[in-house]
Amino acid sequence: MARIVMKFGGTSMAGTERVRRVANIVRRQQAAGHEVAVVVSAMAGETDRLVNFCREANPLFDPAEYDVVVASGEQVTAGLLALTLKALGSEARSWLGWQLPIRTFDTHANAKIDGLDVEALEASLEAGEIAVIPGFQGLSDDGRVTTMGRGGSDTSAVAIAAALGADRCDIYTDVDGVYTTDPRIVAKARKLKAVTYEEMLELASVGAKVLQTRSVGLAMKKQVRVQVLSSFIDEDATPADDLPGTLIVDEDEMEEIRKGTGMERQVVTGIAHDKNEAKIILTRVPDKPGAVAHIFAPLAQAAINVDMIIQNVGRDKGETDVTFTVPQSDLPRAQAILESKRPDIGFNRIITDSRIAKISIVGVGMKSHAGVAATMFRCLAERGINIQAISTSEIKVSVMIDEDETELAVRVLHTAYGLDAEEEETV
Amino acid sequence: MARIVMKFGGTSMAGTERVRRVANIVRRQQAAGHEVAVVVSAMAGETDRLVNFCREANPLFDPAEYDVVVASGEQVTAGLLALTLKALGSEARSWLGWQLPIRTFDTHANAKIDGLDVEALEASLEAGEIAVIPGFQGLSDDGRVTTMGRGGSDTSAVAIAAALGADRCDIYTDVDGVYTTDPRIVAKARKLKAVTYEEMLELASVGAKVLQTRSVGLAMKKQVRVQVLSSFIDEDATPADDLPGTLIVDEDEMEEIRKGTGMERQVVTGIAHDKNEAKIILTRVPDKPGAVAHIFAPLAQAAINVDMIIQNVGRDKGETDVTFTVPQSDLPRAQAILESKRPDIGFNRIITDSRIAKISIVGVGMKSHAGVAATMFRCLAERGINIQAISTSEIKVSVMIDEDETELAVRVLHTAYGLDAEEEETV
Repeated sequence: MARIVMKFGGTSMAGTERVRRVANIVRRQQAAGHEVAVVVSAMAGETDRLVNFCREANPLFDPAEYDVVVASGEQVTAGLLALTLKALGSEARSWLGWQLPIRTFDTHANAKIDGLDVEALEASLEAGEIAVIPGFQGLSDDGRVTTMGRGGSDTSAVAIAAALGADRCDIYTDVDGVYTTDPRIVAKARKLKAVTYEEMLELASVGAKVLQTRSVGLAMKKQVRVQVLSSFIDEDATPADDLPGTLIVDEDEMEEIRKGTGMERQVVTGIAHDKNEAKIILTRVPDKPGAVAHIFAPLAQAAINVDMIIQNVGRDKGETDVTFTVPQSDLPRAQAILESKRPDIGFNRIITDSRIAKISIVGVGMKSHAGVAATMFRCLAERGINIQAISTSEIKVSVMIDEDETELAVRVLHTAYGLDAEEEETV
Repeated sequence: MARIVMKFGGTSMAGTERVRRVANIVRRQQAAGHEVAVVVSAMAGETDRLVNFCREANPLFDPAEYDVVVASGEQVTAGLLALTLKALGSEARSWLGWQLPIRTFDTHANAKIDGLDVEALEASLEAGEIAVIPGFQGLSDDGRVTTMGRGGSDTSAVAIAAALGADRCDIYTDVDGVYTTDPRIVAKARKLKAVTYEEMLELASVGAKVLQTRSVGLAMKKQVRVQVLSSFIDEDATPADDLPGTLIVDEDEMEEIRKGTGMERQVVTGIAHDKNEAKIILTRVPDKPGAVAHIFAPLAQAAINVDMIIQNVGRDKGETDVTFTVPQSDLPRAQAILESKRPDIGFNRIITDSRIAKISIVGVGMKSHAGVAATMFRCLAERGINIQAISTSEIKVSVMIDEDETELAVRVLHTAYGLDAEEEETV
């Protein structure tokens, strides 16, 4: 017997017919002998509807009451799933965020989890009840409703799995796992049997939008084994205890899985692309101590995430061009801030470009391999793809290129690092 | 300075534009120097949407999880009204049922209020905040969400007004007060300045669907002064402290209002009609002790409300026909129950008729006037309207007639009891 937390996204919960499908998937795990807690998102589209109401009601964002409104979407699906499970003959009940409670800090609309009381929940599971918990929502110290930001239900699920000491946290979504790269770009992309937390963090943060980044960080910190899988699998063809998803685990377990399945060790695990960044160039910035701080301090203050930074020295004596990227959605705000700080920064022009893409190769194998980045640069150069900027971490190399060359770059690198599926392995 | 509870129904809350209208009405009362708590319904149509989800999820009614789902509608509007008030510059916050809490007994889906903790609420009001409270919802002893039945927000509002010791509970709805009769039937119907609790109870329970009956009973018990008025009044033309609604008060205050405004004392205050009843006739029931109990005990057990009852003696020796009314919506269930009890009851045939109407004249003045019922019977007879059954209370006389004659009967009685407005008084 295992204890499993299952999480279902908005597409899986969109309408009572789909909720019934989810109920059957849940009942199947219970029938296999497991204790089951289920975390649900709001119906697809519902959170957008509620957010729109809030915007219309108050153009100035008021996060405490916003949370009251938007948390209702998950309350509805939690109640409906409990109703459906009971209609099918299971014992089930819903536990709202304030009922457990899931305690969070009071940063409304983007609350972090502070702790969870799971005594009542454990008693319910041990009595054979299926627990249904709305994701995304929590309770602040002063007793108010909080929510955890878009995609927060993933984090709810991981936090509940950690608190329950669950054997696994299964995240059911509309894709059937984590791939070596986007299968819409590379037909030979392979579904990964497993990735490490660190790899998933890099993949999640550079555009492989399978999981909320924060949930992966929490899983790593709490050592929760996560599995990503599709809620639209053919149940009859799949044993309940051998689901075909992607496991997200620590490096030790990753190594075991590799050995157990005879998988070859890859240096690069996956290739991500991200078209949602924009490039900003400030020309003729005075090349003196503190100049860069004048640029990035006000952006940081406005919570704008600056990613790749390059300083081109030597245009004119004592002047330099500074290039960096920000999320496209923050570009207008970033421009306005920089213009307002022009006297302090002292640049000549702002040049912006949204037609860029960030391509990243990710893999724990890089830690022990030299020459991985060199292969990347050589491959791209051979195809005439110009690299505008580079950033690296211990297990990742990212390059900025022209947006039009995204697909070509991803395909070339996927082949170069030996990730292409052989015909018979294609999923 | 007064303390006022204001309640807005679903039509008034349907969409952010209407919520803004409500916010302005609320702010106007605060600007007039009052402490204001607001109780809101879900947007018109929303509760039906949620109820439908529940039905689809579980054809067997499961009230505890049903409550989790349907309570969300009022949570949304409470948050939105607080957001809107803040956007307009007021201090405001929402208080959900479990946050106050509004404690109820655990009869899910039809919960009665057990008590209210209003300490935090009072502190908030005294600090100048507008409190926004979702109607309809409460918290059971075991910490679960409860709801109070359709129309329960009226009862929430009255209960909160009682707990806060409010000077008045203003119920804003889509009609602008309580009328002598349905203005759609009688053009000369007059809006009443005031009615007593007892009169309103009779009017509410016989088809003048302005307020949930239970809320009127609670107002009477707790001596809460209630005012019914429209949320679509022309605010600019109406002083904030002289709103043109109908007050629902006790007999003493009623008497004072009458004297203060020089109103004539009427024997009959209003005339109600109800087309939602159905007639059942059981023929040839054995006329022996206990026979009637065999009919009505199983119906009571199934919570079917039986109203008018007549026993026609003398068809055959030892047999009688029994006629009574039930709500039309319960007719199929009532028939099934009676059929199943046929061996115990021993009737010959069941005859049913939905084409009936109940017409009621209501007025505290009847207590001290004889001949009121006689006038009714004579008027109807003069117009050839056949009375099929009669029931009475201390302040009410009801007759059952053919549904087709409803409008005629109401008009005739409205004139007969001197309720027609003179031209210049018409609202």
